[in-house]
Amino acid sequence: MKIVNPVRVRKGMKVADLVSEMAASGVMGAGKIAKAVDIMEAMIRDKGCKVFLGMAGAMVPGGMKEIVIDMLRHHYVDVFVTTGANLTHDMVEALGHSHYQGDAHADDEALNKKGIVRMYDSYMPNKAYEDLEDFFEKHFPELQRASDVREFLWKLGSLVPKGKDSLLRTCYEEKIPIFCPAISDSGIGLMIWGQLAKGKKIDVGMFNDLKEILDIAWTAKQAGVIYLGGGVPKNYIQQSMQFSPKASIYGVQITMDRPEPGGSSGALLKEGISWGKMHPNAHFVDVVSDVTIALPLIYGALKDRLK
Amino acid sequence: MKIVNPVRVRKGMKVADLVSEMAASGVMGAGKIAKAVDIMEAMIRDKGCKVFLGMAGAMVPGGMKEIVIDMLRHHYVDVFVTTGANLTHDMVEALGHSHYQGDAHADDEALNKKGIVRMYDSYMPNKAYEDLEDFFEKHFPELQRASDVREFLWKLGSLVPKGKDSLLRTCYEEKIPIFCPAISDSGIGLMIWGQLAKGKKIDVGMFNDLKEILDIAWTAKQAGVIYLGGGVPKNYIQQSMQFSPKASIYGVQITMDRPEPGGSSGALLKEGISWGKMHPNAHFVDVVSDVTIALPLIYGALKDRLK
Amino acid sequence: MKIVNPVRVRKGMKVADLVSEMAASGVMGAGKIAKAVDIMEAMIRDKGCKVFLGMAGAMVPGGMKEIVIDMLRHHYVDVFVTTGANLTHDMVEALGHSHYQGDAHADDEALNKKGIVRMYDSYMPNKAYEDLEDFFEKHFPELQRASDVREFLWKLGSLVPKGKDSLLRTCYEEKIPIFCPAISDSGIGLMIWGQLAKGKKIDVGMFNDLKEILDIAWTAKQAGVIYLGGGVPKNYIQQSMQFSPKASIYGVQITMDRPEPGGSSGALLKEGISWGKMHPNAHFVDVVSDVTIALPLIYGALKDRLK
Amino acid sequence: MKIVNPVRVRKGMKVADLVSEMAASGVMGAGKIAKAVDIMEAMIRDKGCKVFLGMAGAMVPGGMKEIVIDMLRHHYVDVFVTTGANLTHDMVEALGHSHYQGDAHADDEALNKKGIVRMYDSYMPNKAYEDLEDFFEKHFPELQRASDVREFLWKLGSLVPKGKDSLLRTCYEEKIPIFCPAISDSGIGLMIWGQLAKGKKIDVGMFNDLKEILDIAWTAKQAGVIYLGGGVPKNYIQQSMQFSPKASIYGVQITMDRPEPGGSSGALLKEGISWGKMHPNAHFVDVVSDVTIALPLIYGALKDRLK
Repeated sequence: MKIVNPVRVRKGMKVADLVSEMAASGVMGAGKIAKAVDIMEAMIRDKGCKVFLGMAGAMVPGGMKEIVIDMLRHHYVDVFVTTGANLTHDMVEALGHSHYQGDAHADDEALNKKGIVRMYDSYMPNKAYEDLEDFFEKHFPELQRASDVREFLWKLGSLVPKGKDSLLRTCYEEKIPIFCPAISDSGIGLMIWGQLAKGKKIDVGMFNDLKEILDIAWTAKQAGVIYLGGGVPKNYIQQSMQFSPKASIYGVQITMDRPEPGGSSGALLKEGISWGKMHPNAHFVDVVSDVTIALPLIYGALKDRLK
Repeated sequence: MKIVNPVRVRKGMKVADLVSEMAASGVMGAGKIAKAVDIMEAMIRDKGCKVFLGMAGAMVPGGMKEIVIDMLRHHYVDVFVTTGANLTHDMVEALGHSHYQGDAHADDEALNKKGIVRMYDSYMPNKAYEDLEDFFEKHFPELQRASDVREFLWKLGSLVPKGKDSLLRTCYEEKIPIFCPAISDSGIGLMIWGQLAKGKKIDVGMFNDLKEILDIAWTAKQAGVIYLGGGVPKNYIQQSMQFSPKASIYGVQITMDRPEPGGSSGALLKEGISWGKMHPNAHFVDVVSDVTIALPLIYGALKDRLK
Repeated sequence: MKIVNPVRVRKGMKVADLVSEMAASGVMGAGKIAKAVDIMEAMIRDKGCKVFLGMAGAMVPGGMKEIVIDMLRHHYVDVFVTTGANLTHDMVEALGHSHYQGDAHADDEALNKKGIVRMYDSYMPNKAYEDLEDFFEKHFPELQRASDVREFLWKLGSLVPKGKDSLLRTCYEEKIPIFCPAISDSGIGLMIWGQLAKGKKIDVGMFNDLKEILDIAWTAKQAGVIYLGGGVPKNYIQQSMQFSPKASIYGVQITMDRPEPGGSSGALLKEGISWGKMHPNAHFVDVVSDVTIALPLIYGALKDRLK
Repeated sequence: MKIVNPVRVRKGMKVADLVSEMAASGVMGAGKIAKAVDIMEAMIRDKGCKVFLGMAGAMVPGGMKEIVIDMLRHHYVDVFVTTGANLTHDMVEALGHSHYQGDAHADDEALNKKGIVRMYDSYMPNKAYEDLEDFFEKHFPELQRASDVREFLWKLGSLVPKGKDSLLRTCYEEKIPIFCPAISDSGIGLMIWGQLAKGKKIDVGMFNDLKEILDIAWTAKQAGVIYLGGGVPKNYIQQSMQFSPKASIYGVQITMDRPEPGGSSGALLKEGISWGKMHPNAHFVDVVSDVTIALPLIYGALKDRLK
């Protein structure tokens, strides 16, 4: 058995060294952070391993966009699944708007009158939607012939202004497949509805990109999963893992959701073994943390270790 | 100010009387349960009010199906939005299979070998999927021409064996619009993929039923929302509320998710006021509870009050 | 394996019948509620079993006083351990004051100016403390010679006005040993300090009543534990269980605290097996719920079953 | 309004720079971490400010001992309040034993047979208690005449082997008042009971050190509070703040406990304003995190800023 070596903090300490201290401690949340770094390093270094990243929750309004873009740019991630909300907020920023540091206990009626919408303590001016509308009005002809959501999203990424930091743009440029099974449940969905309301048509089918993600899973020699939050992104990846020859053999989950209510979002990764989504001998860890705390810490250490 | 009258429990007490005691106490979780009953009663009694029910999490494996069916049968609910997983589990039961009382700390590898999948402490035999496959193989011609998910789900409901308690069947029979924006992210999705893999085609479009839910919201004199868990079902209803003339004026949310990480699932209903999803003067309550505890309690009291 | 029979709710349903439905469902939170009733019934019916009840959190301001008093009056509980805060609030009510239904999002500065203190959404007028001061000024001579906290608390219970519903009074009248290891950390502690500041002395020793609770544990043929919240009350009982010949063989815990941070409050009962606090074959359940929701529900069913 | 600048992570990044990125993001958990560093820096730099540190939960078994010792050695902290369990584990390590990295899902019966006790995923060999017994047997004469817990703990600290990293030893050497209102609820309490069972006597009074902590609060020009977890340590400091002329004007709380059940452990710091425990204009933040994740991160940045 390894000793719990208490975490020692030094002046001028690097993130990677702090995580090494957490590894030496090896227990509770700190131990899980250190384990997450190890497992992410292993899955990224494993040449035959396809890494699936699921991202739910207010990650773009919560300031996590650049870390994920960095992961995509470096091809640490092979498949990206996220929510329509995150892609909407990504577009909002790509079109030149910003999110603002707000107050979780604000007077929401006053915010509403000022045209500000709130996601916990992150604000967005409502007028961002006007630019979104113009964008979709202008580009609808290029979007309407996409046959599935994956294709739709790459097309969208190609249309986002170049040079802007954007998840959509990055996936397009790096040719990383991006999925969003509930895209209609988002500002982007509403924009498309606005076009359909004018009598236009769109081809995007509901079930068509399932084949694509399942094929990637099916042909992967090894698979690894990283979940930032739960929701549809996690579940969509999990179900594809049932079709991966070895299921996932690496897994990192970061969420505040509890397992006891029984839903997929809070389910421990271990549960996936019964489904054949996770290999019985897989290396995995469930980090119980706000993603905006754990991810920068984990990624700060990971960057030092990779190349 | 009202006094906190401690909850008094008597022998042979009815659920409705217990909730009255909770109302007299009026604070903490008990007070919120009582408030939820009041608000649900009000929204159901309000003739001009359209009630939108969102349901996420393992509600069918968690034994909540009959309560929701009862709500649908009595038309306490006008619009139903749920996850593909719940509809898959609903079909599994409608086709004659069951979920089983299991162990949250089970040996998942052993379960896997026995062909049992686990959702926390609820089990399902994997062979249920075989019957699902046969069902979709047989009925695909009737399903493939649905133009949107709402239509697809009613069609599915019409095909489910009559006389079985089923969410899908009930929505079909009672003509209650049912939405599932991420239907491809579920066993049902996989069944459709199985058909597409054989070269068949399906028409179901991604964005097509947005018009329907937004029209219902738009034409509602009043709107009320009930959220069992968060996820896409909650968010899909929430975004439609922005288009309802008065936003929602009643709201009940039951979830264990926390607000602090910033995601939609755990967001307090109050946040919706900034978005125009919730009316500033709305009656609403956030119940922090496992749905399988709070819902039976709330519904037990509600049944007594409604005619 | 038992089937998950979905919970069915009927008009005019009794609490006990609702819990029977939860038992038939048998999974998630509902299943745990039903199991808690079974285990509490078993430990109360078991003639040789000493039942230890630990209560932490804002249970008196949260309206749970009468249920606990009912448990004490019926001698369902043999040993009671709680926090100084709960006993202070119990005294406040026994002296004729009330708690009030408030607002968890209140303007705390405004409350402070009005002389109202807040516990989440339960309010207490500050002037209650004045009566407490008078009480302790008057009765100090009777209290100061208590040699340990248990004796101090029975003495305090004897001085509380008769006929008032009070935890302290009930323990005194029913001769139920009551422990409060951190009594100095409470309004009662401050009242004693107020007396000491006037140069008075008090004999109450820190370690003296340990012998009493350990003797009860040691001589119990069987032991059962019920934890409403965690904190010192849970831990104080847990440590005594190490000295009970069979450890506890029944256990019910109700808390919202999570196990992952590693503290005693959120620790699963199972962990106690490693310590010898819980018997390896014990019947126990961890209910993840707000106590003010779960306890009335559990106790409503339990009352019907007992006698 | 300040823009949410997404967190950017660089190779070789220092902890302090990562926290600066979190500050630039400024929202969700990351924003709170950054705010916690600012507030802790401010309270430590404020010459007239007395800093009260409360620590609950399995912090010593969880590897947080050295960070707290570092804070004590540098006199960043003026008053320390903790649990008996943490002090017991501190003594265990000071006497040469270790905690070990274990498994939260271990077979607890097997652990029990091996003489290993478990705190989540941290293990301790039971035989550590034998050395504790010898220690208390040997040193009881020096301990028994302490009149209050604070004095008892300094005496204990003086007896702990020199040169060992120990919270108790550090408080003694640095003359930092250390309080533990529920000391009888711990392994140390059991050791004392073991001595009393042999007919020995001890003078330590229950209420005697209240005067000391209240005097420190009363005479403080300014006060700041830091809570690692809740429980008695938090509450004991909070009640002393009512006696500080300006209440606390700085506050940092790190806990996973939720506010909704109403207990003190999960209560937001803001609630303290109603009680006069927190100044209405105080700088404070509630960090929702496992302490073992947040504290090293916060302290890593703080060390860089101080001196």
